[in-house]
Parts: sequence; structure tokens; C-alpha cells
Amino acid sequence: MEGRQEEARPVGTILANERGDTCPKNSNGKMREKTLTMDTLNPQVKAVEYAVRGPIVTKAGDIERGLQQGQKHPFTEVIKANIGDSHAMGQKPITFLRQVVALCSFPELLNSPSFPEDAKQRARRILQGCGGQSLGSYSASQGVDCIRQDVAVYIEQRDKGVPADWDNIYLTTGASDGIVSILKMLVSGQGRSRSGVMIPIPQYPLYSAAISELEAVQINYYLDEDNCWALDINELHRAYQAAKEHCHPRVICIINPGNPTGQVQSRKCIEEVLHFAYEENLFVMSDEVYQDNVYSPDLQFHSFKKVLYEMGPEYFNTVELASFHSTSKGYSGECGFRGGYMEVLNLDLEVKAQLVKLLSVRLCPPVSGQAAMDVIVNPPLPHEPSYLQFHKEKSAVLGALAEKAQITEQTLNTVPGIKCNPVQGAMYAFPRIFIPPRAVEEATSLGMSPDMVYCLRLLEETGICLVPGSGFGQREGTYHFRMTILPTTEKLKVLLEKLRDFHIKFLKEYASLEEPKR
Amino acid sequence: MEGRQEEARPVGTILANERGDTCPKNSNGKMREKTLTMDTLNPQVKAVEYAVRGPIVTKAGDIERGLQQGQKHPFTEVIKANIGDSHAMGQKPITFLRQVVALCSFPELLNSPSFPEDAKQRARRILQGCGGQSLGSYSASQGVDCIRQDVAVYIEQRDKGVPADWDNIYLTTGASDGIVSILKMLVSGQGRSRSGVMIPIPQYPLYSAAISELEAVQINYYLDEDNCWALDINELHRAYQAAKEHCHPRVICIINPGNPTGQVQSRKCIEEVLHFAYEENLFVMSDEVYQDNVYSPDLQFHSFKKVLYEMGPEYFNTVELASFHSTSKGYSGECGFRGGYMEVLNLDLEVKAQLVKLLSVRLCPPVSGQAAMDVIVNPPLPHEPSYLQFHKEKSAVLGALAEKAQITEQTLNTVPGIKCNPVQGAMYAFPRIFIPPRAVEEATSLGMSPDMVYCLRLLEETGICLVPGSGFGQREGTYHFRMTILPTTEKLKVLLEKLRDFHIKFLKEYASLEEPKR
Repeated sequence: MEGRQEEARPVGTILANERGDTCPKNSNGKMREKTLTMDTLNPQVKAVEYAVRGPIVTKAGDIERGLQQGQKHPFTEVIKANIGDSHAMGQKPITFLRQVVALCSFPELLNSPSFPEDAKQRARRILQGCGGQSLGSYSASQGVDCIRQDVAVYIEQRDKGVPADWDNIYLTTGASDGIVSILKMLVSGQGRSRSGVMIPIPQYPLYSAAISELEAVQINYYLDEDNCWALDINELHRAYQAAKEHCHPRVICIINPGNPTGQVQSRKCIEEVLHFAYEENLFVMSDEVYQDNVYSPDLQFHSFKKVLYEMGPEYFNTVELASFHSTSKGYSGECGFRGGYMEVLNLDLEVKAQLVKLLSVRLCPPVSGQAAMDVIVNPPLPHEPSYLQFHKEKSAVLGALAEKAQITEQTLNTVPGIKCNPVQGAMYAFPRIFIPPRAVEEATSLGMSPDMVYCLRLLEETGICLVPGSGFGQREGTYHFRMTILPTTEKLKVLLEKLRDFHIKFLKEYASLEEPKR
Repeated sequence: MEGRQEEARPVGTILANERGDTCPKNSNGKMREKTLTMDTLNPQVKAVEYAVRGPIVTKAGDIERGLQQGQKHPFTEVIKANIGDSHAMGQKPITFLRQVVALCSFPELLNSPSFPEDAKQRARRILQGCGGQSLGSYSASQGVDCIRQDVAVYIEQRDKGVPADWDNIYLTTGASDGIVSILKMLVSGQGRSRSGVMIPIPQYPLYSAAISELEAVQINYYLDEDNCWALDINELHRAYQAAKEHCHPRVICIINPGNPTGQVQSRKCIEEVLHFAYEENLFVMSDEVYQDNVYSPDLQFHSFKKVLYEMGPEYFNTVELASFHSTSKGYSGECGFRGGYMEVLNLDLEVKAQLVKLLSVRLCPPVSGQAAMDVIVNPPLPHEPSYLQFHKEKSAVLGALAEKAQITEQTLNTVPGIKCNPVQGAMYAFPRIFIPPRAVEEATSLGMSPDMVYCLRLLEETGICLVPGSGFGQREGTYHFRMTILPTTEKLKVLLEKLRDFHIKFLKEYASLEEPKR
């Protein structure tokens, strides 16, 4: 085919005549090559890793489909404990939240006597805030005004009166969206002046993925596993000083309660971090999506914002702090709605306009997710008709999680070669596992991380789907996995039992390999 | 305050004592500077422009609030014709769609006799596809399987039997999300080998914004205003050849029906574009979110995919084509749900895995938006109970839009100094406006684009909010604005009348300035 000739002829006709299974060639007679190949793919995209939905999870899906099609495996079901997806693990939605979302979605239901008045009142208020009183309108880029106002009131109550300005509230598409937006703003410079982002290790891999995508510099600070994964201020100093040699550290990210590590940060530690950020001119990003998930009765959640306030105006009026919340975790577990918010303090006014502009390109967060967020920050009050049921449902979820946190920690610690810190909060255990040297060698020779091999075998032999610690980061030479505490208590016990048996068998297998002559 | 001393003392106590309105200083005695300023902001973020929600719209919001607070203006309401936000302009939701979403949100309603059986059947099917049968679970990164299957069936029917594989379907957070994801994959190289992205001028500014953010090279090809904004293949060649000198053109983006230009592309033209993309090894991105919005009775929508198929297997099996659809436009106008899908053909298998990985970092598109998308691709069938009402509502919306498209074009063309192409499809008119040389000079001396000044004055004097053509791109020396055809017919007539009066007054004012001695 000659391009130039083509143009002279009526294109449609010719092409129809030329159909067939000939090799695709362009006008130069060459094969038409793919435009987008691994060689031409954006290298920043290539660099992204996201273990929570990585190869293990893909394999789990394959096995699940295989089981459905009658394939034989040494188990009858895959138990997914890889992702904090509460409803998928059987948790029921909070009735009140879903009533409000249904009323907003189909306002005819506002006339139905089967919906309680407080749910209707919430729905009417949200719809009043929407263009044309419809969930189908775009909201403002920062979100629906009245929902942002409700978020501000919630934060004030949570923080015992610390003032919250709804102008600082941005509704987001889950917390991830907010986190990536703020990081995107903060990345600049080249070479030694390139922005550095301090993140905990182990971390939730959204952070490392976003840092790769934005070509920022990842600065690891290690949490102290021997001290219940506490954040050690000296380690922050060490990491910062080391990083200063090759980049410009500009942000510190904290996840509290911790993911995947489950620790709840002490007030003193938060104050130290904020003081450090103040001294070193760092922007603080505080991921607080598990703020309702604290299980240890002697611990409590402290927001970075409240602590900053208590440190006095010279801190509260200067330190740039973005904190994040979400509909996906807590007691509601509404991941699918992709609701969330961030509160951003002390942002330069011109920069703020830039942030709003950036958000406006994506138009707005999903409005039904915004509605779900509204219910979480504005739940039924004691005098309202839905209060009792709401309270009962919320307590049941959080009570079960607390129980499962304890069962998980205790059972794992009975297994030789597994050591698990208390699951103080969030939804995960991140136990350290002993992997025998021969197994480490084997994995290394395959170019795989030892805990990846461990998790793959665990999946193949037991149907349990966990995420290897290497996906979150861990100290060199240590191995872990992350498991959620979300399966039902009954299923969790089965999981832990299978895991114990597997681990013991695994150790035994390699023990015999290590000492073949005994 | 001395940082080192601080560490020795119990931090909390000291800080509480030191509260006051002292200047914020760090341990070096310097003022604490902001980390994030206009100087340190990511320059790619700074480069982003998005006129649809730009300064005019901000000002319109200010005026609206002013009116509510009793401020005096020469008008009593702001008429927003700046954004394709149907429900905000009074369009009612499609009942069936909202019934399905409400049923999915609050499945207890499945027992209610007031919901039709076909809506219940859709909701049950969607819920079956969700983890734990809940809209609150994360879906797979590509979206809920059965919804992707429904999308594939819809595409096959739309394209008269052209095969569609649901493995190529990705549900997205509105079309914008899909477009940015694909562009992100395609950007690589430095200097002369940097990826170039061909976009129409005028364009929807999501494209230019994403190109700025990704630091790709924008390659403009101009639509032919004198020929109803048709795409001229010679102009594509010109733009491509010119761009090859300084970048590596890798993608061509087409918006059909056009935004902001409202043209519906001919089948012949689509074939020419695809042939060109084939020859030049370009990835094709076809933005088809207005596929249901065709008003001229003698025109019809042709999907790029169908045309590619008809060009024969040497094209259909090789050209990389991503096409995009959305819940936001069409007859449903469900912008707030942020639903959408893309179909991606001929993607290299390894690259596909990379795309899924990239999407997985954001976990999943909002599941209620996925449910809304499902209804749009799987509406009631003629034998089903909701068919009549659905059909009536759909026809009413599309009929009204067709009428308003005509009123808009006709009225604008009665105004001296305004010339409007037929609004063949989409939701916008993009008329050319004559701006007198003195007005152009005045604007230029203020560092503003003349059509921005025009739109600002229009807003201030009449309350009408439009977007200046400069936000979409236009040929040097020509001026336009984009207005939606979404206001109710009655309000649209008022808008057009006010606009005519304003334009005539504007021309008169500058005519007297131009010839002061007459």
C-alpha cells in the first residue's frame, strides 16, 4: 500500500477491498509497530509498584475462578486477607448511611414512611447543597459546601474545640486522591534540589507509588518494630540528615494509626514530629483514615491538628499540615463510594488557588461519596430516631474488630518463628516471620523476595491471600506479611490455624534441608 | 527557642507556656518560611489551565453570593452556561437510573413493591458482581466484571455487531480519569524525542491541562471553522510534519461530537484520521462522550471503533485505539456520579498489565458511578415495565436539546458581529464574535485576552456566565465564547436576548470610540 496513491483514491472503497489477513504494513512497506510498548511506556509508570493488588492477588483471582470451574486445589475457598475491604469480607453497611444515600439518589423516597426522619433531614440538606438539588450535578471542585461545613464541625468536636474552617476542607475521591494531589503540588526541582518525601517504613504503598510516578525522592524512616512500631524521633533526624545530601526534603508523611503496622502514635511522639517539621520547614501529611479504628483500651487517637494547636500559635499558625480521612475505613468500611476529605492548614493563599485549579481539572469528587462522607461526620444524635440502631451497628463493628485484633495477635504469637506486635489500631497485623536461610537463598536465586515466595506458597497450599512485607518495605534481612483482621471471627480462626500449620510445615521442610545429614 | 534545649525538656509543657503571638521562628532564629510557595510549587501544576472553571466562573460565584446577600446588580440572577452540568440547569434525572442506584445503595428496597421489577433485576445483577454484594466494596481496578460485560454488549449493539471484548473495557471515574490515565502511559522521552499529543483546536481544556501536567508536547491541529468545524486531513498532515521537527508525535486525540465546537464528524473523515494514524504509528484517543447527543437529523454518530473495523483487519488488529464514554453527558447528564468507561484496542499485553497496575493504585472507580454507567449501557428493553417511562424521559431530554441547539444557532446568527456554526451535536455553541480593534487593544494593554474581557463584562452587566474562546484555543486573531445549550428553553431565550443586546451595545460603544471625530 502506498500512502500517496491512497489519498488519490476514495479511501473507503480501497480499504474494503484490501481486507484480509495480510501482515499489517504501513506506507513504507514496514510492519506497523505498536506505538505503546514496554520500551516506549512512560518510565515513571513502569516504576510504580502497588503490592496490595500485586501478583499474589492476581493469582488468587485465577485460583478462585479455577475453583469455580471445578479445578482441584488442597482447599475449597480462597480467603482474601490482602486488602482493607470490609464489605467484601462480609461486614454489613451501616443502615443510616445507606438510607441517606438512597434518599439522595432517588428523592421520591423522601415521601416514603419507611425512612426515618433524621435520614430524610440529612438527605434534604445534602440535596439543598447540590446544583438543581441533584446528586447528578457536578459539585464545586472542593466539594459540596454544606458537607464541607459538616466536616469542619466534626473536626472541631473531635478535637475538643480546636477551630476548623470549612474553607480549609476539600472533599476527595477517597483519601488516595487527596494524598496524591498534595504530593503533586510539592514535587519540584532537579538533582540535589529535587523534592524528598519522608515516609515510614513499612508504609502503605500508595506513597511509594505516587513518589515513583511523580519522580520525587523517597526518604525512608524506619518504624521501631521492637517498640510496637513506634516512630522514633532520632530515626527521623537520621533519615533527614542523610537525605539532605542528595535531595531537598520537603514533606513528611505519617500514617496514624499505622498501615500496615497497626500502631497508635502517642501524643508525645506526634508533638516531636510536629516540632521536627517546624524546625526543618517540612510540610506535614498526616494520614488519619483509621482514626476510628483504635482497639487498645489504654490508647487513644490524637489528631496531628489538635496537637499542633496545643503546641501554640507559633506552630498552629505556621506549620503546613494536610490531614486525610476517608469513608473506606472506620466502622463504615464504605470503600466503593470513594469518599474522603482533607483539611489543609496554613497553605499559602496563592498556592491554595493553584490547588483548587488542579482539582478543578477533574471537576469534582463523586457526589454520592461526598454524601457518604457527610453521614460519617454527621451521624445520628442521641435524641434522633436512628441513634439506637446506628450506635448498635457501629459498636458491633468496632467491637468485633477489637476482638479480632486480639485473636490475631495472640494466635500468631503462638506460632514458632512468627512474632506479632499488638494490633493497636487500623485493620492489619504485620507480623515478622522467620524464613530459614535456605528458603531465602532459594528465593534470591529466583530473583524473588523471600516473603513473596512464602506468600505464594501459602496461597497455593492453603488458599490464604496475604501481601508480602516487601511490598510495604521492611528492614533489610527481615521478612513480614500483612494480613487484614477483616474476615469473620470464624473464618479468621480458620485462616490463623491454616497459617500456623503452613508455617510449621515450612520451617520443618527447610530445617531438614538445612541439616541433610542428621 | 533553641531546638536542642527543647529536646531535653518535656516538650508539651514548654510549648504550652510559650503560646502567644510571637513571630514564628525556628531554631536558627529565622522566621519559619512556608514550604509550599508559588516559587516552590510544582511548575507543571502551575502550567495547568482549566478555563471551564476559571476566573470567570469564580467571579460568577462571587456575584451569586452577593445577590443572595442583597447586593445590587443590573440583573437578578446569574445564568450559568459555562459548564455541561445538565442537572444543575434543571434537567431531571432519568427515573430508572436512579431507581437502580437507590436499590443498589439500600438493598432493603428490593422488597419494596414500589420499585419496578426490571430495576430490581438490574440492581440484583450489579450487587451480585460486587464483593459481599455491597456497593461499599472496592471493585476490581478495571471495574465490576458484569458491568464491563454489559458495556461490551452495548458497544457491539451500537456498532452493529462489531465484536467487543469485555477484557478491553475499563470503568473509569468519569471520562477525564480514563483520558489522563492513557495520556500518562504515553508520555516519555526528552527533548526532540519527547511525546507529542495532537489535539484539536478548539479543544476541551482537559487535554491541554493534562499535557501540561505531564510535560508532554501539545501539537495543535486546527478545526475548520468555515466548514462547520470539520477536521481537515491536510491540516493533520501539516501539524504532524511541523511537530516532527521538535518532538515525537505519538497520539492523536479527537473529540466527536466536538466539544466546544459541536460538530459531528463524517464517516469519511474518521476513516481518513484512522488511516493517518495507521500510517504514522499514532495511538488514537477518541473522546465520544457526546455519542448520544446528535441533533441534526441528517447526521449520525460513527464510532472510531466501528470505522476501524470496517477498514479491515490490517487496521482493526493493529491500530491502538482508546475510546471514552461517560455518565455525565448524553441524555442522563449524571455528572456527579463520576461514571465512565474506556475501551482500549490492540494494547500490547505487557503494557496492559502496566495500565491495570497504574489504575490499581487508585483502587477503583466509584462503584455507584459504575452502577449508573451500567444503566446507561443496559437500559429497559421494549418488553420491560420501565421501558415506556424511560423512553419518554430520554426522548424529552434529547428533543429539548435538539430544539435548544437550533434556537441557539439561529438566534446568535441574527446578531451582527456574531457567527455561529450549526450545533450538530454535544451541548455547546462556540460562536465567533467580532471584537472591535479598540477593544482588542484595550484588552491587550491589560494583558488579558479580548474574549476574556468580553465575557467578564458580559457577566458583570447581564449575569450571563460563559467561557472565553481563549480557554479552548482558537486561530490567532479570532475570538469566540463557549455557551452550553442547557438552560431551560425559556431561560435560554432570555440569555440569548440579553447577549444580543449586550453585543450590540458593546459594538456601538467601541464604534464611537473608533471614530471619535464623526
